[in-house]
Amino acid sequence: MMEKKGKVVLAYSGGLDTSVAVCWLMERGYDVVTLTADVGQSVNLEEKKAKSLQTGAVAAYVMDLKKQFVQEFVWPALKANGMYQGTYPLSSALSRPLISQQLAWVAKNEGAVAVAHGCTGKGQDQVRFEVAIGALNPELEVLAPVRDWHFSREAEIDYAKDHGIEVGASVQSPYSIDENLWGRAIECGALEDPWNECPEDAFKISVSQEVAPDKPQNVEITFEKGIPVALDGVSMDGVSLILKLREIAGAHGVGRIDMLEDRLVGFKSREVYECPSAITLIAAHRALETMTLSKEVLAEKKRLEASFADLAYTGYWFSPLKEAIDAFVDKTQENVNGTVRVKLFKGMATVTGLKSLSSVYNHDLATYSEEDAFDHSAAVGFIKVWGLPLKTWKQAHKQDPEKNESISVSC
Amino acid sequence: MMEKKGKVVLAYSGGLDTSVAVCWLMERGYDVVTLTADVGQSVNLEEKKAKSLQTGAVAAYVMDLKKQFVQEFVWPALKANGMYQGTYPLSSALSRPLISQQLAWVAKNEGAVAVAHGCTGKGQDQVRFEVAIGALNPELEVLAPVRDWHFSREAEIDYAKDHGIEVGASVQSPYSIDENLWGRAIECGALEDPWNECPEDAFKISVSQEVAPDKPQNVEITFEKGIPVALDGVSMDGVSLILKLREIAGAHGVGRIDMLEDRLVGFKSREVYECPSAITLIAAHRALETMTLSKEVLAEKKRLEASFADLAYTGYWFSPLKEAIDAFVDKTQENVNGTVRVKLFKGMATVTGLKSLSSVYNHDLATYSEEDAFDHSAAVGFIKVWGLPLKTWKQAHKQDPEKNESISVSC
Amino acid sequence: MMEKKGKVVLAYSGGLDTSVAVCWLMERGYDVVTLTADVGQSVNLEEKKAKSLQTGAVAAYVMDLKKQFVQEFVWPALKANGMYQGTYPLSSALSRPLISQQLAWVAKNEGAVAVAHGCTGKGQDQVRFEVAIGALNPELEVLAPVRDWHFSREAEIDYAKDHGIEVGASVQSPYSIDENLWGRAIECGALEDPWNECPEDAFKISVSQEVAPDKPQNVEITFEKGIPVALDGVSMDGVSLILKLREIAGAHGVGRIDMLEDRLVGFKSREVYECPSAITLIAAHRALETMTLSKEVLAEKKRLEASFADLAYTGYWFSPLKEAIDAFVDKTQENVNGTVRVKLFKGMATVTGLKSLSSVYNHDLATYSEEDAFDHSAAVGFIKVWGLPLKTWKQAHKQDPEKNESISVSC
Amino acid sequence: MMEKKGKVVLAYSGGLDTSVAVCWLMERGYDVVTLTADVGQSVNLEEKKAKSLQTGAVAAYVMDLKKQFVQEFVWPALKANGMYQGTYPLSSALSRPLISQQLAWVAKNEGAVAVAHGCTGKGQDQVRFEVAIGALNPELEVLAPVRDWHFSREAEIDYAKDHGIEVGASVQSPYSIDENLWGRAIECGALEDPWNECPEDAFKISVSQEVAPDKPQNVEITFEKGIPVALDGVSMDGVSLILKLREIAGAHGVGRIDMLEDRLVGFKSREVYECPSAITLIAAHRALETMTLSKEVLAEKKRLEASFADLAYTGYWFSPLKEAIDAFVDKTQENVNGTVRVKLFKGMATVTGLKSLSSVYNHDLATYSEEDAFDHSAAVGFIKVWGLPLKTWKQAHKQDPEKNESISVSC
Repeated sequence: MMEKKGKVVLAYSGGLDTSVAVCWLMERGYDVVTLTADVGQSVNLEEKKAKSLQTGAVAAYVMDLKKQFVQEFVWPALKANGMYQGTYPLSSALSRPLISQQLAWVAKNEGAVAVAHGCTGKGQDQVRFEVAIGALNPELEVLAPVRDWHFSREAEIDYAKDHGIEVGASVQSPYSIDENLWGRAIECGALEDPWNECPEDAFKISVSQEVAPDKPQNVEITFEKGIPVALDGVSMDGVSLILKLREIAGAHGVGRIDMLEDRLVGFKSREVYECPSAITLIAAHRALETMTLSKEVLAEKKRLEASFADLAYTGYWFSPLKEAIDAFVDKTQENVNGTVRVKLFKGMATVTGLKSLSSVYNHDLATYSEEDAFDHSAAVGFIKVWGLPLKTWKQAHKQDPEKNESISVSC
Repeated sequence: MMEKKGKVVLAYSGGLDTSVAVCWLMERGYDVVTLTADVGQSVNLEEKKAKSLQTGAVAAYVMDLKKQFVQEFVWPALKANGMYQGTYPLSSALSRPLISQQLAWVAKNEGAVAVAHGCTGKGQDQVRFEVAIGALNPELEVLAPVRDWHFSREAEIDYAKDHGIEVGASVQSPYSIDENLWGRAIECGALEDPWNECPEDAFKISVSQEVAPDKPQNVEITFEKGIPVALDGVSMDGVSLILKLREIAGAHGVGRIDMLEDRLVGFKSREVYECPSAITLIAAHRALETMTLSKEVLAEKKRLEASFADLAYTGYWFSPLKEAIDAFVDKTQENVNGTVRVKLFKGMATVTGLKSLSSVYNHDLATYSEEDAFDHSAAVGFIKVWGLPLKTWKQAHKQDPEKNESISVSC
Repeated sequence: MMEKKGKVVLAYSGGLDTSVAVCWLMERGYDVVTLTADVGQSVNLEEKKAKSLQTGAVAAYVMDLKKQFVQEFVWPALKANGMYQGTYPLSSALSRPLISQQLAWVAKNEGAVAVAHGCTGKGQDQVRFEVAIGALNPELEVLAPVRDWHFSREAEIDYAKDHGIEVGASVQSPYSIDENLWGRAIECGALEDPWNECPEDAFKISVSQEVAPDKPQNVEITFEKGIPVALDGVSMDGVSLILKLREIAGAHGVGRIDMLEDRLVGFKSREVYECPSAITLIAAHRALETMTLSKEVLAEKKRLEASFADLAYTGYWFSPLKEAIDAFVDKTQENVNGTVRVKLFKGMATVTGLKSLSSVYNHDLATYSEEDAFDHSAAVGFIKVWGLPLKTWKQAHKQDPEKNESISVSC
Repeated sequence: MMEKKGKVVLAYSGGLDTSVAVCWLMERGYDVVTLTADVGQSVNLEEKKAKSLQTGAVAAYVMDLKKQFVQEFVWPALKANGMYQGTYPLSSALSRPLISQQLAWVAKNEGAVAVAHGCTGKGQDQVRFEVAIGALNPELEVLAPVRDWHFSREAEIDYAKDHGIEVGASVQSPYSIDENLWGRAIECGALEDPWNECPEDAFKISVSQEVAPDKPQNVEITFEKGIPVALDGVSMDGVSLILKLREIAGAHGVGRIDMLEDRLVGFKSREVYECPSAITLIAAHRALETMTLSKEVLAEKKRLEASFADLAYTGYWFSPLKEAIDAFVDKTQENVNGTVRVKLFKGMATVTGLKSLSSVYNHDLATYSEEDAFDHSAAVGFIKVWGLPLKTWKQAHKQDPEKNESISVSC
């Protein structure tokens, strides 16, 4: 008789891999508790619960985490204009620490000895789950059945059939997908040659530039302390605003990303994403920051934004550096208030207008009109001092006069 | 009788300001030598020469600097993905040190005691001219008649008429323009309210998204050591390639930029640019770098790119830091070889394909197919070590378990 | 009769320059109010007050600012290990914004139209005063009589005698000095040749290595949240702790600094400082941070420390970037608790012991003894993944085998 | 009969671990070739060769690598002021890539199938060897017998005795040592409590402050392009200069380092080093840079120096980022020429004089004497522009006047 090992809490999507994982873990002596979280991926939680219990789980938790996802993960990322390598808005990366947190909580609630995820051995998500759980509860063991079992796709399907697991149509899909409120990630074989353009059927929440409407649509997004609070003047909670904007911007083809990305585990990978809300909101937020933050803050913040994105991407969400960067960012966001007009059209989200009561743009300094308040004569002294180090440098390092032979001169 | 002060070499565009400056300098005792440079702004050099001499200059130099501009200024900027504040491709900023260099050369050739430019006291260009000339020849005095003369627009026009200077239609234009191969800069009164969208008639070398063709156009750009050498497989010199691409990309509405920019002289200013070639080439170049540079190089280079842009923007082109950054960048560019397919459509330049013999993308590591060469089991040890510092941190700083009250749980 | 211009508040040290300034400002129509602040430079406030009134001031404020200086300026700088160019602990730089703040406050209290300082036109302090006051009250005019009056030293002394100002012995001193709790700054002619060693009589609060005692002295400094709270186990307020440590460390020759420093106003300057407390406390604080902060925090904080020092040095104390960096730093300091043993001996402050309840040093991981808790086998997978990008890079860029000719090989 | 596996090249110090490794590898079917390198650790190469062959090696290479070590590893590190975490001069870290290079060369020369090192599973050196060899020859297997064999110290000694390996006195030493020209690294049990001061008998190449001579000694070090070429005016090759300076500075107690260091493999470790030459030369080099490099170069170089040190520390010596940083650094070093006077006394290396024909220190700008060439009036305009953004910021964000209650005011 098999040794009983206690309970394991499995992050359960209800797809083939995690369904097979339920059985595979049971066969190894675990009582399996599943956790299915709604982070905006249009999941039917009750269906998943039923399927889990039917597959053999001793308990099936389902949770609507959309609100917590937005407030504790998406908004901090937006305030930091979080883009890994300047390009990827971190959508999947942001959901992993949240799900890890809830896995740890359920494990505690159920007295489980381990948690489990359905990731393979070459992705980023295994790192994010395992590092986050190690941070949240160092005592918990983390299992990775999909990484361990060495099934081929065919063997996995046979195993599923043998164990009465329904094998859905999705196993035929050439695409591997992860989705949440902040974006949708797509991987597939055809993408593995970077010269190939991404096939159109890979996308779901955005249309192509070609079929996008022939008329632009303007939206006005209002921010308070760096967070969007209203769309076209209508106040909205974060979940609603992101979903609404996803629909509008996606319909104009906005938010597609196609990149070669450096994975933490040591190689480059072609990745395609659809992130209509993220792309639109980050563009608007960045523009509003140019109006409300000083030059020095903009420059230093940009460096910290890169660190923020690296931390989120590599599983270091619950880390002291992340907390310290949040403190810096939050201080800057106290002044990021105002409204941004964004034109959505044929794949582009273009900022066409900015207004803010916290603006440090000063018309009277900038203007070339008669209201000009800038002291032009101060510029003379300024330039003299500004250029002095360079003048001194060149006096110390005399050079031959520039030769001019390749230039045609007429005089 | 007026004291003779010697020769001054004036950077001369032939517009109202620099024409008036010729007379104004003559009245102050200088013999004026003008220098008119072609940096791709479609200037008629012979016309300018005639106008200069007619206005009273003792000599009028005209120079075709397009080739030198591309090779010594634009290509280094492209290799560094030079964008001030991440947005402005530095077009005007790049031409100033070149013109300064030629002013210094003509001054030497003519035995002049000073050089002069036509900038006002609140722009960036005065800084760039004066700092560059101070670096190139610390003995030369730099005059800035427009900054000094305190004419109103009306007084300036009256002065011009009195001195027989033709006042062209351009003085009625609401726009202040600077143009070269790498882009076109536009300032005007209507832009001084950042909530106003930029008027369509401000643009000249790009169409609007709305009137751009309904069919996309692909171009293939081939790079060698970070520099574009062929368009659609046809080898071209740099000037031709930039001009050709400006035409194609501009016709698809690519390259418009509208931003609030932090000037060195201490205030924010609304700036609008059209840079079809710059935007397309930088997008292609950056994408090719993701395929041919390592993760660490990409991250460090990004930081140095910001420094590069600041140096170019603030007049520090001929500086030792700029030279050291060039050395770093040039080392990295040895491997930036390959071809990039860019789709130009309705204002967007989208990279849709990459290929390179210097690629460090490794299909066999990235693939999820059977050719997978990645050692999945190594990930286990990797994650253990990667997460160890965070685990240790959290063991030292025990926290209460996460409360979960706001989340709806069903199980 | 002279036009009355209103009141001006003058930062008044009571030395020759500021005494002359009182008269000079009076002659220009101002009623002069003086402000003399004690920031730890052993000033006799009542004497200064008497001298000011005698010289003609209409009112003379004297303030003990030592406590505020430590809490609002020195401690934030210590938490940020504030050292300009990695070397200068910012002593004078920290007092300027505080004095500016009080100048602005007195100006408001007195209804003054201007404030004034006694700096020349080439130092840093003029920048710090004027930028800080511009930030604190943009309406206040700032006067700089010493910068304006163009007296030679002799003319100034004659003027003083003519106006009944006592010319003290200090005017014969070859040294220009600024002093406060955090350190003492020395400038003089002999230092202007960087090959000259600084003369011994330039120093006042530290002895030379040569005459320092032949026996070392240990001190134990206890920190809470990055701030020193006890010396050798005795709790102390900040002012007392700094003064006590200044005495002890100075007596062992600790704290002398001799450097070429880049001034904001565009040139390099030889500067000598004595900062016994600053050097000892920063060494101790940094060491404690290696025990209580993570690797990533240490690295990112080091970059921000450089920015912090630049801001303090260049007059940007009251700036939004400074506030955001403070927020980052304060977050990190929550864990900087513990005790540091420092050996003071012959000019050196050497950390010889560290202990902390917030330590993230983990003996069981670090030990080579049998208690070793580190999983050695995880290292194998870690190294494999860690080295993978470089292996891939080199596979893509095959090189010839290393030639070995210059090495003597015997086998 | 045992399967023959081919040749393995073992990095062989001749101590207990690597001697046992010879036998252990032979037992697993390898023909062992040893490589013993002289990198300045006072090794008797011929003795090591004899011992290796006697233990059973089929061939024993011995190499004097001192010159190559200095030129290709130490000098680049000095030019980059290479200090890991600002403190450790990378001594052991620099020798590993060199030894790896020679292991790869011998492996090629001998047709070996693998190389081997004697590191454990928790140090840095395993990473450096394995990553470097993976970069230099991705086909070579790397063995780590000490990491694999799981001997206790006692079992290892028994095994050694059984195999006729001489067990020297060093196995009784409480210290684990690595030494080369650039420094000596010490680890031991007593150091594992960071509150313990390091025992005096741990040190070998430096005396304590207490017993150092009571008279200081000045040395003058001359640099060309960032590299020391003469000591006290006497030209010397690099190896001789470092050895000579090690002796002089060590005799004055200079070069001891005691730190908590963050290892790449995820934990903090107490490390003690003696690096008399490194500490003295880096201090001199940094000081000379303050005289010969511009402010901007100094600041940017400091950031890159941290990256350089991280790369060297973590095994990324042969990496593209390291090459690009070298290019930056080499460009800056073209001007780092001159002579530095360093006073060595009681543990301190203090720079007391600097002179350079490449100096950008300008006496006429810095002086307060009558030769003053600085334009004081330019400062007025400069400060006005410099402070403008802050003034604008504060105008946009009006604050209540500063309260002043806690300050004692008398007037």
